[in-house]
Amino acid sequence: MTRPRVFEKPLGMRDWLPDELAKRRRIEARVLARMAAWGYREIETPTLEYDDTVGKASATADDQRFTLLDRQGMALVLRPDMTAPIARVAASLLRGEALPLRLCYRASVFRRPRKDAGHSAEFPQLGVELIGDGAADADAEVIALAVDCLRAAGVARFSLAVGHMGFLAGLLESTVPDAALRGELKRFLARRDFVGFRQAVGRSTLPDAAKKRLLALLALRGGAETLEAAARVVGGGACGAALETLYRLWDVLAAYEVTDCVGVDLTLIGHLGYYTGVLFEGYAADHGFPILHGGRYDHLMALFARPAPATGFALVLDRVWEVSTLELEPDPPAVTVVYDDAHRAEALQTARRLREEGRVVVTRWVADADAAVRMAEQANGAVLCFLDKGPVACGPATGRERR
Amino acid sequence: MTRPRVFEKPLGMRDWLPDELAKRRRIEARVLARMAAWGYREIETPTLEYDDTVGKASATADDQRFTLLDRQGMALVLRPDMTAPIARVAASLLRGEALPLRLCYRASVFRRPRKDAGHSAEFPQLGVELIGDGAADADAEVIALAVDCLRAAGVARFSLAVGHMGFLAGLLESTVPDAALRGELKRFLARRDFVGFRQAVGRSTLPDAAKKRLLALLALRGGAETLEAAARVVGGGACGAALETLYRLWDVLAAYEVTDCVGVDLTLIGHLGYYTGVLFEGYAADHGFPILHGGRYDHLMALFARPAPATGFALVLDRVWEVSTLELEPDPPAVTVVYDDAHRAEALQTARRLREEGRVVVTRWVADADAAVRMAEQANGAVLCFLDKGPVACGPATGRERR
Repeated sequence: MTRPRVFEKPLGMRDWLPDELAKRRRIEARVLARMAAWGYREIETPTLEYDDTVGKASATADDQRFTLLDRQGMALVLRPDMTAPIARVAASLLRGEALPLRLCYRASVFRRPRKDAGHSAEFPQLGVELIGDGAADADAEVIALAVDCLRAAGVARFSLAVGHMGFLAGLLESTVPDAALRGELKRFLARRDFVGFRQAVGRSTLPDAAKKRLLALLALRGGAETLEAAARVVGGGACGAALETLYRLWDVLAAYEVTDCVGVDLTLIGHLGYYTGVLFEGYAADHGFPILHGGRYDHLMALFARPAPATGFALVLDRVWEVSTLELEPDPPAVTVVYDDAHRAEALQTARRLREEGRVVVTRWVADADAAVRMAEQANGAVLCFLDKGPVACGPATGRERR
Repeated sequence: MTRPRVFEKPLGMRDWLPDELAKRRRIEARVLARMAAWGYREIETPTLEYDDTVGKASATADDQRFTLLDRQGMALVLRPDMTAPIARVAASLLRGEALPLRLCYRASVFRRPRKDAGHSAEFPQLGVELIGDGAADADAEVIALAVDCLRAAGVARFSLAVGHMGFLAGLLESTVPDAALRGELKRFLARRDFVGFRQAVGRSTLPDAAKKRLLALLALRGGAETLEAAARVVGGGACGAALETLYRLWDVLAAYEVTDCVGVDLTLIGHLGYYTGVLFEGYAADHGFPILHGGRYDHLMALFARPAPATGFALVLDRVWEVSTLELEPDPPAVTVVYDDAHRAEALQTARRLREEGRVVVTRWVADADAAVRMAEQANGAVLCFLDKGPVACGPATGRERR
């Protein structure tokens, strides 16, 4: 084990420099404004939670959670998602508020990166939770809000893929009797590893008809017509009920006028074992990883003793930031006020006045005029000199202001 | 060891509910706007850092840092302050930018609470760092900016106490030969435990003249006249140089026109072993704990191989939030749009139009008019009904809109 070098950050951690962060803040403000317009109120929960409660309720594998012990020997976890903490709050501090609750957040979540570099460990997110409404209209509401947020975030071209856990689970259960093989197939889908899925189906001992149905699943991705194709692959039962929900959802999405950026993907599974119904992922053109994920999680609230249906989504903010075409608001050019001892009060009053007028002002005391000249050469914008020796050539040729 | 109950949060952690957070966000926005006006650019660093570098460079005792191991067995730390991470960035990614650097941040820092409840463990902060300027004018700039920020945050009555590490260290070193006793006395001052300080001085074997000087230190708190009193207690040397700096600082603060809310406190020591020169704390009227702390730390940048003088401060945001008299911007009353299947498209179009006009709109699908009536009774603001069975009595008597 070597000591880290002094500049190093832990694997998966990043710094946001001023220009990068300014663009991110602009995205955050615009997205949070949309969430507020739809009636979602922002809350914040602690970075650390008990692992036995919120950690275990989250959708994150044991070895991907950052855990540590408190002084009493209890296991703490850096929140691996925001859905479980918000469920905790909805079931405790907000227990007196009538459902449905509409809540939103801006927060980082944490997952241990795999050994190879390139994986993030801290994920800034913006998200919403709609707790206490089980209707297809609630599923559609969060999907339509997701579309509104991605547009506000400046993601020029994107699409949302919508699936249903009940369809996928129903198909697997009615086709694959062996639970171990079902689990294996689900893990391939969770990793979007369709080649692995095909191979696992191929080498299984399932009858040919079952293999055909499973491979047909992989083709159930596309527009609304995919629902018709899915109905031909499966019969009724759980799959049929899920398709009914998706038909109904599609009608609501049409009323929201967002179907032009939504597709169907019945292979979607999201985080393993988390979602219970409609689920969705957002993709930007030319970007391989999801920039948004969400779905219905009707079992989570019961873990916090306030059973209720719920749905929501989270934007993966660093990826949204990468693909966003929002321009940085150009920084107003800063004014540099240079002064010496004799002119301090006058200079600082001017600085204050300029700030009151909305200007960005940095001030700098100098011992002599030579120092002022050196300083002015560094400055980007206008330079105002307040010096004992009268006006000196202190400032770039353009944009300079002289007394 | 018992398992935590499902609603519990770890010791020292808190949730921010929507109304609480809205006030905090308002404070944050106003304070960050002041920092920006003074030329400070916001950056963000990771929540986790290497403990061997940033953790050890911070001002936080080993047993107060939250540490954990990464997959490689390296010790990670939840950042115990923002100053050390920003020093790391200033010395690495921002190495190419000329000094002085003006940077600001909004972030939580983490310290393990003592065993007794009531102590926080996660501290939301707003702060600035001014790196690369050793002049008294730089000290005064951050103090004047602190005043501007506290006013913007709505802290009606506050005062800043200003001290100097060099004065305190010089007095102790020239008066107390025994390093162990010096350490003990410093710890009493760091805890603001003047009774303990007095008792430790009293029971020491120091000569009477030394005891008298040490006890005189405790009286060196007040207005600018305190500097005169201090000059009578000490001679020249390190103490004299520190007093010279404070005289100079006072002149600059007068030019900033902030001396009416600044006092002198030569017992200030801040975090043990952190500050190197001028340091300060902010107090609100009727609030016992500091709401702001800052000072000069000229040795820290050298740990990251870019030696430079530096100063800065951090607002303790939860305490500022408590004492702030800023009013919440009244939420615009939300409009509730209730609809059934037959009127969905019309209802959702209306909702969108109202949002475009700046209204907050929540929508709710209902199966029948009875459900609509129950829903309308819950709503706070105006209710708009789009229902198959014609207009129904659906909304509180006031503010109701009917089709």
